Amino acid sequence: MNASEFRRRGKEMVDYMANYMEGIEGRQVYPDVEPGYLRPLIPAAAPQEPDTFEDIINDVEKIIMPGVTHWHSPYFFAYFPTASSYPAMLADMLCGAIGCIGFSWAASPACTELETVMMDWLGKMLELPKAFLNEKAGEGGGVIQGSASEATLVALLAARTKVIHRLQAASPELTQAAIMEKLVAYSSDQAHSSVERAGLIGGVKLKAIPSDGNFAMRASALQEALERDKAAGLIPFFMVATLGTTTCCSFDNLLEVGPICNKEDIWLHVDAAYAGSAFICPEFRHLLNGVEFADSFNFNPHKWLLVNFDCSAMWVKKRTDLTGAFRLDPTYLKHSHQDSGLITDYRHWQIPLGRRFRSLKMWFVFRMYGVKGLQAYIRKGSNKVNEALLQRINSAKKIHLVPCHLRDKFVLRFAICSRTVESAHVQRAWEHIKELAADVLRAERE
Amino acid sequence: MNASEFRRRGKEMVDYMANYMEGIEGRQVYPDVEPGYLRPLIPAAAPQEPDTFEDIINDVEKIIMPGVTHWHSPYFFAYFPTASSYPAMLADMLCGAIGCIGFSWAASPACTELETVMMDWLGKMLELPKAFLNEKAGEGGGVIQGSASEATLVALLAARTKVIHRLQAASPELTQAAIMEKLVAYSSDQAHSSVERAGLIGGVKLKAIPSDGNFAMRASALQEALERDKAAGLIPFFMVATLGTTTCCSFDNLLEVGPICNKEDIWLHVDAAYAGSAFICPEFRHLLNGVEFADSFNFNPHKWLLVNFDCSAMWVKKRTDLTGAFRLDPTYLKHSHQDSGLITDYRHWQIPLGRRFRSLKMWFVFRMYGVKGLQAYIRKGSNKVNEALLQRINSAKKIHLVPCHLRDKFVLRFAICSRTVESAHVQRAWEHIKELAADVLRAERE
Repeated sequence: MNASEFRRRGKEMVDYMANYMEGIEGRQVYPDVEPGYLRPLIPAAAPQEPDTFEDIINDVEKIIMPGVTHWHSPYFFAYFPTASSYPAMLADMLCGAIGCIGFSWAASPACTELETVMMDWLGKMLELPKAFLNEKAGEGGGVIQGSASEATLVALLAARTKVIHRLQAASPELTQAAIMEKLVAYSSDQAHSSVERAGLIGGVKLKAIPSDGNFAMRASALQEALERDKAAGLIPFFMVATLGTTTCCSFDNLLEVGPICNKEDIWLHVDAAYAGSAFICPEFRHLLNGVEFADSFNFNPHKWLLVNFDCSAMWVKKRTDLTGAFRLDPTYLKHSHQDSGLITDYRHWQIPLGRRFRSLKMWFVFRMYGVKGLQAYIRKGSNKVNEALLQRINSAKKIHLVPCHLRDKFVLRFAICSRTVESAHVQRAWEHIKELAADVLRAERE
Repeated sequence: MNASEFRRRGKEMVDYMANYMEGIEGRQVYPDVEPGYLRPLIPAAAPQEPDTFEDIINDVEKIIMPGVTHWHSPYFFAYFPTASSYPAMLADMLCGAIGCIGFSWAASPACTELETVMMDWLGKMLELPKAFLNEKAGEGGGVIQGSASEATLVALLAARTKVIHRLQAASPELTQAAIMEKLVAYSSDQAHSSVERAGLIGGVKLKAIPSDGNFAMRASALQEALERDKAAGLIPFFMVATLGTTTCCSFDNLLEVGPICNKEDIWLHVDAAYAGSAFICPEFRHLLNGVEFADSFNFNPHKWLLVNFDCSAMWVKKRTDLTGAFRLDPTYLKHSHQDSGLITDYRHWQIPLGRRFRSLKMWFVFRMYGVKGLQAYIRKGSNKVNEALLQRINSAKKIHLVPCHLRDKFVLRFAICSRTVESAHVQRAWEHIKELAADVLRAERE
């Protein structure tokens, strides 16, 4: 395929993509296929001679689509949201054409530098403490990881290296294995399974702290575990606090557990993979309070901030904690700027060596939505829609309500008032409200 | 941005991509910028209100391109090749629109099943031993990793789990830490730095076996290290053999070291990241001999097989070795088919949880090139071009040569014949040959 055929096929593909997104509501969200459905539909080996593009794109509808779970269908409520936006798709197309591998500054300066600045932009949207930002040559900074699992693992490995160095500096006779045997990491019993996996990979114990009635980790339970483990000769070194658990979006109490971690010299990693995008709205930012106690913080713009997978945003207060855990410098990756202190070689911040130009997606999305557009997406329902609904309800005159304001929020207040109300009346009222709400939403979309 | 604007902008982007690829020879391959060039060129924070697409695409040329190292420039000879092809870009566009996260079969059956079948297709192109393939419900199979570094790490972690289980089964009193302290992994002193890194992450010793005069690992050096380490009470458990080292593309002697690893119960991982694509050509396949002794094998189609980054192909002989090392099954990721034995949940095969629909790229590339097209790409120069060159040389009549065949290869034979030849004549002949060769290549391209 030469450039001129690509121009033609690329434009057909753009239309296919747009058709797919526009028609997704009409596709069955979860496929009917049984395991093994695909193999009999395609040849047992690659063709010797080329197939045509038409053959392939026809097979996409015949062979691939019947087996796709449509994550962007409005009827998809499983697992978690995964981001999808046209600006991110455009940026990914550009990323594919540039096709650079950004493991060091020299391997493509724009790839590294745009990432550093985008992570600062995003950090500012969240009002992260300045210590996490890279600008003004601080000690902190951000990096795009492929997934929150990798962010947790990278943080655990950095913490492991740090505690081993600290203990060996004090007692040079201690071997790494002797220390690792005593290391213990913690998370709440509601933490994501990737935290347990990071412990397995890192070869350290991981203990689950019982959460409270709201599924949140609290000071008392943590304190108790620490006392018990220290008395048994173990060395607490790492804690994952979750803001927005997978199961029920509960929040560990950072303001309680943060100071304990700092006092005990325990690396605090805050995992907000699922819920973190909400913190760009001032009314939700208080949920991030306590992040100032953290050594590292992570959330996934690829879940809820319109940046297509993969884009997991991770910040650390001290870059050298990460790079110190991984740094290896073979000659073939060296370049003349690397010891200047001015540059970032992201290969020291992550598990793989190679990396794509992922910050283009952030740049396109942040610019084409603007912060206000992103905030509106998080909020989705607006006060205006609620006001319109109330107006319809009260002009239909079948039921009667009055509104109130809870801080900035316009709320429809449904009070049970009359002595004659039965459950059936409430049911009927609710059906009526739902119908009118559907009308309002339909009108909004048109 | 709605679908209709995406249709327009997407097509503009396709043209931008094609223009970039067509004009890449004219761009300076390595940029002039100094560290920190980008930050002053863009705002310190994300815009509140949306920017237009025109603003952004103009900034790509103004801000991004001056800082790009052009990996696909024909003047780029640094690091290693990274794949780029139009079919792969088309497939990645589709992947962006589908936007599914394929961590389990149920999360998108087509994503998992196409990957399994594509890894079989590729395995057959390489003539991998059947034990590595998934078809006919064998115990082996393939997976797409993000990078060879991850493949090495995953193999090391699987080997670590396996040896710990084996030793604990024999001596239940042994702790994990007591075993890990004695574990030792090996590679040649020419192995890639990611091998050392996998050892660091896995918390085990890694020893470099001195390579021979051809930079290859041989039986004697390995045998010596094993005897010494076993006598010192260490437990050899993992070996990385490299086929095509980064420094000079040397090959470890698999036929020698393979049987030793098998005899000593050492997991053998074969890393052919850089050179492995060549094995699809029958004339290079012998370089892979000995892979039958391996437990896992990996190479990067994203380097030299026209499948854009990231696509690192890894096979194992026993799937349960990988899945046993990582398997954690929280309720929210369970699905009704998972214990049927029929399905593959790729999250157990890799470090991250999330994964994109990367097999689409393999499918598009394998079909649109065909095996013959891929082989021709590896070979690049053909016999025909050589024949045409000889014809030009002999019709120009300034020098005279005759050809020969070395097996299937048409070779131009340059013999120093006359008593009167001086070094200057050879130089002049070489200049003449180079000029005519350039003419032939120019004619080929037109």
